[in-house]
Amino acid sequence: MIELPPVNVALLGEALEVFLAEELRASHLAGYVVGMSGGIDSAVSAALAVRAVGREKVVAVALPGPSSSPESLADARLVCAALGLEGELVSLAEPAEVLAGALGARDTTLRFANVMARLRMVALFDRAARLPGLVLGTSNKSEILLGYTTLFGDAASSVNPLGDLWKTHILLLASHLGVPERVVAKRPTADLWPGQTDASELGFEYRDADPILYAHHELGMSRSSLLTAGFTEELVDKVLLAYRKSRFKWRPTVVARTSASCINVDRILPRNPER
Amino acid sequence: MIELPPVNVALLGEALEVFLAEELRASHLAGYVVGMSGGIDSAVSAALAVRAVGREKVVAVALPGPSSSPESLADARLVCAALGLEGELVSLAEPAEVLAGALGARDTTLRFANVMARLRMVALFDRAARLPGLVLGTSNKSEILLGYTTLFGDAASSVNPLGDLWKTHILLLASHLGVPERVVAKRPTADLWPGQTDASELGFEYRDADPILYAHHELGMSRSSLLTAGFTEELVDKVLLAYRKSRFKWRPTVVARTSASCINVDRILPRNPER
Repeated sequence: MIELPPVNVALLGEALEVFLAEELRASHLAGYVVGMSGGIDSAVSAALAVRAVGREKVVAVALPGPSSSPESLADARLVCAALGLEGELVSLAEPAEVLAGALGARDTTLRFANVMARLRMVALFDRAARLPGLVLGTSNKSEILLGYTTLFGDAASSVNPLGDLWKTHILLLASHLGVPERVVAKRPTADLWPGQTDASELGFEYRDADPILYAHHELGMSRSSLLTAGFTEELVDKVLLAYRKSRFKWRPTVVARTSASCINVDRILPRNPER
Repeated sequence: MIELPPVNVALLGEALEVFLAEELRASHLAGYVVGMSGGIDSAVSAALAVRAVGREKVVAVALPGPSSSPESLADARLVCAALGLEGELVSLAEPAEVLAGALGARDTTLRFANVMARLRMVALFDRAARLPGLVLGTSNKSEILLGYTTLFGDAASSVNPLGDLWKTHILLLASHLGVPERVVAKRPTADLWPGQTDASELGFEYRDADPILYAHHELGMSRSSLLTAGFTEELVDKVLLAYRKSRFKWRPTVVARTSASCINVDRILPRNPER
């Protein structure tokens, strides 16, 4: 059976801390803003940022929607307390209801989920403009490869320390960073309705999907090789379908290239010029 | 004096049509959704899309905010009529007021402008999900290089035919495509308050900035070379300052790379796999 490669969480954590410290320095801005959901990804991102730049340069904001659970907010508070962050609260319940009402999207689960995720992005970038600072990303590699993110919503950030990390490894990193055990142990959820979990939506657990994604995306193993390696057909097909369907999210905006200097295609320029 | 290179608008238009037709085909989706502001960029994008895939596959939506001018809406209607599009209208006035109120961003011009631009993005992607289709981009190269766009707002789209086109060339293309003369002739505006124009915000006109941006970004000319070439110091410094300050918008999300398969960094995979 193929497994994820081993991970040295101490070294990984250190590398990501240096990354976050350097990105903030190069930006000449005042700090990081992170949306605190009560889940493990935002807890790990925030913990890394606190280690990297100090808690006085990290602003954590809880952004509940109309059907966010009180437990999630309690967990967000627990993480803030553990990290020495005060934490802010901006309810997006009314803005979400009004906007979804105007769009006619309130009663369609997926559309409403995308509206919520994007409203959170708007709130975080607005808070970052006020700091002024950078929005800290919380999307992980497993979610991104499976498409379990909203484009220009939770997938949008200034700097993302977790985008190349498997969910399986984030669990290990979370324990290493001292994220409260209750948050590490709970089941991942987008918190859009009571009892929702990522696994119930996706049809499989991240710990089962990660080795398949790794073998397929990173090692280049085909479907038949995955079956030969011992993964079950049902799981392989579910994971590969989600993987294929989400491809468009990895290259969000396709620009028609008409010149020798098309932005973000041909030229690598420093993102934060010093002068 | 350095000038923009000449442009063959007939050939350019044809190339962009083929681009839009091919992107829609590859996506297996039903059409394009475009936010119709009454300005020239959305008119040109929509005109290209209509030529590329037919008007029955293009949905134009006007998305006025609390202080959008009636003239802009009238111009949006004019463009729709010229292109044979019915046009839809979703007022974002109330959602924008409620959201900006919750964020405390109503009275800060720049923050409110970003909230509006991002709400339009939410509305367009929601409409695209309903079609289902692609959001057609309308940001042009001049705006992008000057940072006169909102990250994850008007800068966000699925497919953008104008992202590598100078505003100066878009004017020529607009006339070629039969965009109504009133829309071609009017001064560009973000339409956030009465009398606002891009030029009053930027401090210069696109037609004056474009040759400087071209010489600096595409030809690699330094500030001193630009002055030697005859551009005035005041204009060069204004344009180069905006250019440098906006660099972070060209590479929106920086992901910490920790593996050999970091998404959108090392691997070029088809955005729309056939199988």
